[in-house]
Amino acid sequence: MSILRKLNKLQMIILVDMDDVLADFDGEFYRVWKILHPEKPITPPKARKHFYIRDESPEDYQPLITEINTSPGFIRSLPLIKGGTKAINEMKNMGHTVFICTTPLIKYHNCVKEKYEWIEKHLGAKWVEKLILTRDKTLIKSDILIDDKPEIIGAAVPSWEHILFDKPYNRDITDKKRLNWGNWREIIEDRRQE
Amino acid sequence: MSILRKLNKLQMIILVDMDDVLADFDGEFYRVWKILHPEKPITPPKARKHFYIRDESPEDYQPLITEINTSPGFIRSLPLIKGGTKAINEMKNMGHTVFICTTPLIKYHNCVKEKYEWIEKHLGAKWVEKLILTRDKTLIKSDILIDDKPEIIGAAVPSWEHILFDKPYNRDITDKKRLNWGNWREIIEDRRQE
Repeated sequence: MSILRKLNKLQMIILVDMDDVLADFDGEFYRVWKILHPEKPITPPKARKHFYIRDESPEDYQPLITEINTSPGFIRSLPLIKGGTKAINEMKNMGHTVFICTTPLIKYHNCVKEKYEWIEKHLGAKWVEKLILTRDKTLIKSDILIDDKPEIIGAAVPSWEHILFDKPYNRDITDKKRLNWGNWREIIEDRRQE
Repeated sequence: MSILRKLNKLQMIILVDMDDVLADFDGEFYRVWKILHPEKPITPPKARKHFYIRDESPEDYQPLITEINTSPGFIRSLPLIKGGTKAINEMKNMGHTVFICTTPLIKYHNCVKEKYEWIEKHLGAKWVEKLILTRDKTLIKSDILIDDKPEIIGAAVPSWEHILFDKPYNRDITDKKRLNWGNWREIIEDRRQE
């Protein structure tokens, strides 16, 4: 195998999801909820069984949940998930082409700009150019997609292998590889050698 | 050929660019420029030879150009390009899966939210879900991409055929099909029968 072919084989296009993979959406939501609605118990992140908070919350919580998620500054101020930004910079330095692929909230008004601001703040202006906003991730070509959502469907047959970012609410999925910011190097290395 | 296979063959994924294809970015820019800088001549849209206005404008115009493009309300208030929104609704009714694929300005602060607002205003909330923001369109899988930019490059080998949305500044490109909102049905029909 020539050096060039070897290099090509080693370099992948990698999509990385943003909410709950790089940015701690659920953790921040839970923190704010407990302050605003201390009398209303809600499932803590570690005990979650569903991808959407709304799917394990009573009907009367729904407008309150949306009010927090869509409020000005919520997305911009999301804390980092430990190890995430370091990992994607390292992937890039390994020669991979990395894009951040995120689905904006239906109520996009504060969310979309703040996603760009978050990336600029935590990763710098160069990474802003690597941000893709789409509600259909099956359309985006890549070798792998690192995403916490259990099942990802859309208009196309995906080109990527979906590697699960490990979360309590996706642990019932057993037919996909599972990654966290501790073990990502091994998982990426395995995929590269296939 | 079975009816189902026939149907599949007839239905395509179509990406449609936004600026200068659906929304009249250049026309509005020129209108505002003439009001703000009547003493500074600038190339009118019909005489443009370059894709970017900045590429045919003197150095001292550059900050003034950016000032207009990035000002609050500029993107939100872009006029419609005649026939564009009607055409994409018609494509959808023909059974095609249509997405609007747009590259935000590097100075994204007003641009990104206003792109969503423009789509919601002129096409409705359902189309907001079909909006894809990316600075690399080669990653987006589809059968065709309707775009006025002469050459579109990026990290991947595109899956789409690039069909040029006809503009003065792309008329030197002769090896691509050319489309406008008058003749689009024939061009789409041709592509479908290939």
